[in-house]
Amino acid sequence: MTQQTGRFITLEGSEGAGKSTNLAFIAEQLRQAGKEVITTREPGGTEIGEKIRELLLDPENKAMHQDTELLLMFAARAQHIQEKIKPALAQGTWVISDRFTDASFAYQGAARAMGFERVAEIERWVQQGFQPNLTFVFDLPIDIGMQRVASRGGQIDRFEQERKDFFESVRQAYLRRAEMAPQRYQVIDASQSLQQVQQQISEQLVQRLHIALNV
Amino acid sequence: MTQQTGRFITLEGSEGAGKSTNLAFIAEQLRQAGKEVITTREPGGTEIGEKIRELLLDPENKAMHQDTELLLMFAARAQHIQEKIKPALAQGTWVISDRFTDASFAYQGAARAMGFERVAEIERWVQQGFQPNLTFVFDLPIDIGMQRVASRGGQIDRFEQERKDFFESVRQAYLRRAEMAPQRYQVIDASQSLQQVQQQISEQLVQRLHIALNV
Ligand SMILES: Nc1ncnc2c1ncn2[C@@H]1O[C@H](COP(=O)(O)OP(=O)(O)OP(=O)(O)O)[C@@H](O)[C@H]1O
Ligand SMILES: Nc1ncnc2c1ncn2[C@@H]1O[C@H](COP(=O)(O)OP(=O)(O)OP(=O)(O)O)[C@@H](O)[C@H]1O
Ligand SMILES: [Mg+2]
Ligand SMILES: [Mg+2]
Repeated sequence: MTQQTGRFITLEGSEGAGKSTNLAFIAEQLRQAGKEVITTREPGGTEIGEKIRELLLDPENKAMHQDTELLLMFAARAQHIQEKIKPALAQGTWVISDRFTDASFAYQGAARAMGFERVAEIERWVQQGFQPNLTFVFDLPIDIGMQRVASRGGQIDRFEQERKDFFESVRQAYLRRAEMAPQRYQVIDASQSLQQVQQQISEQLVQRLHIALNV
Repeated sequence: MTQQTGRFITLEGSEGAGKSTNLAFIAEQLRQAGKEVITTREPGGTEIGEKIRELLLDPENKAMHQDTELLLMFAARAQHIQEKIKPALAQGTWVISDRFTDASFAYQGAARAMGFERVAEIERWVQQGFQPNLTFVFDLPIDIGMQRVASRGGQIDRFEQERKDFFESVRQAYLRRAEMAPQRYQVIDASQSLQQVQQQISEQLVQRLHIALNV
């Protein structure tokens, strides 16, 4: 029997939408279904990538130009794909990432107004066609997301300092991306209760990736 | 009288060829000719760029993929152009940089064997046609350059750890680039005495950029 390659699942959505909470849930579900799973995040995911993440999130780097920001995001992503994601998938391990390239389209492409095409040029250069098998977009009104982040506490990073219309364009960009390729994206209404959200996630794992869950 | 924009001069060549030594000399010449001058370097040149430089040169980052390396170089470069080089030129200040994009063609394109075209794609994305007015290529047999660096002392960075054939392809790549666009490049035989090298530099500044030197 030849070994099957793993699947690559990414979680997207604006701040506080529930990506990290549901990353853990999905990993748990897949492991119960007998899969080898690793979880990871962007920007970051590798030693070099985490150092790049620090530059990106540091509120001190206010003067960062948007081209620099996008190139740093993809520098970390190139390392992530080559060092961690592709080797894991090749071994049959499933990979779940808290954010991936759709975030560059939403944050730099839309909210920073670079345009989707300018982001797509670097995406093609780095990924050469490599894409997630499934992307969950957690969709939530911005106000609710901000309340959830606030009640979670902690320090505020360079992105979290942006204003509400910035996050509104992030949200709309994710929805536009999902509409453009419905076979790859599943939008989840994240204003529902966590139980409802996770019920839908489980259904999608079964339907789209044929996971056998013992529900 | 409308203000004239400054000119952008870059210095290239393999390790120990004399870039830093002659950067100071050129700045001095231009100042004597009445120009406002700033000197800078790559990777780096800005606060954010210098942090990216640290990642690039740190011998600890051995696992760095070549795509990551190129994207980090251009992330620093985008910041350098937008924050420092273009604003200075617009004010009439001349800018001299110790390395610029030709180094990415030589090191990543040739020595890391990514190919010139793959580097050119990112160059076009970042620079959108922006180019130096004049590039000096300091050309020197690898052995002599290595001796000069060794006798200068100091710590060895991630690039200086490479083997001789790596630097041989860096050298050949610079010569190929210079041949492809002789109107922008001046190759200088850096095995000559420093006095001879600087005599030639002065001549080129007069001929190519119409600098009035009081020699
Ligand atoms: N469906 C839900 N209903 C109510 N609260 C939720 C729901 N999903 C997540 N939360 C809570 O909202 C907060 C934010 O969730 P989480 O950290 O998972 O979001 P995130 O998308 O990872 O945010 P960030 O973008 O800041 O990383 C957490 O305190 C979490 O417990
Ligand atoms: N034409 C020359 N003849 C002899 N020695 C020289 C000449 N040019 C420079 N040097 C000496 O060689 C050493 C290396 O020069 P320099 O530091 O300017 O090179 P570089 O190209 O900036 O090197 P690196 O790539 O390592 O930054 C210095 O000690 C310098 O004084
Ligand atoms: Mg999170
Ligand atoms: Mg030098």
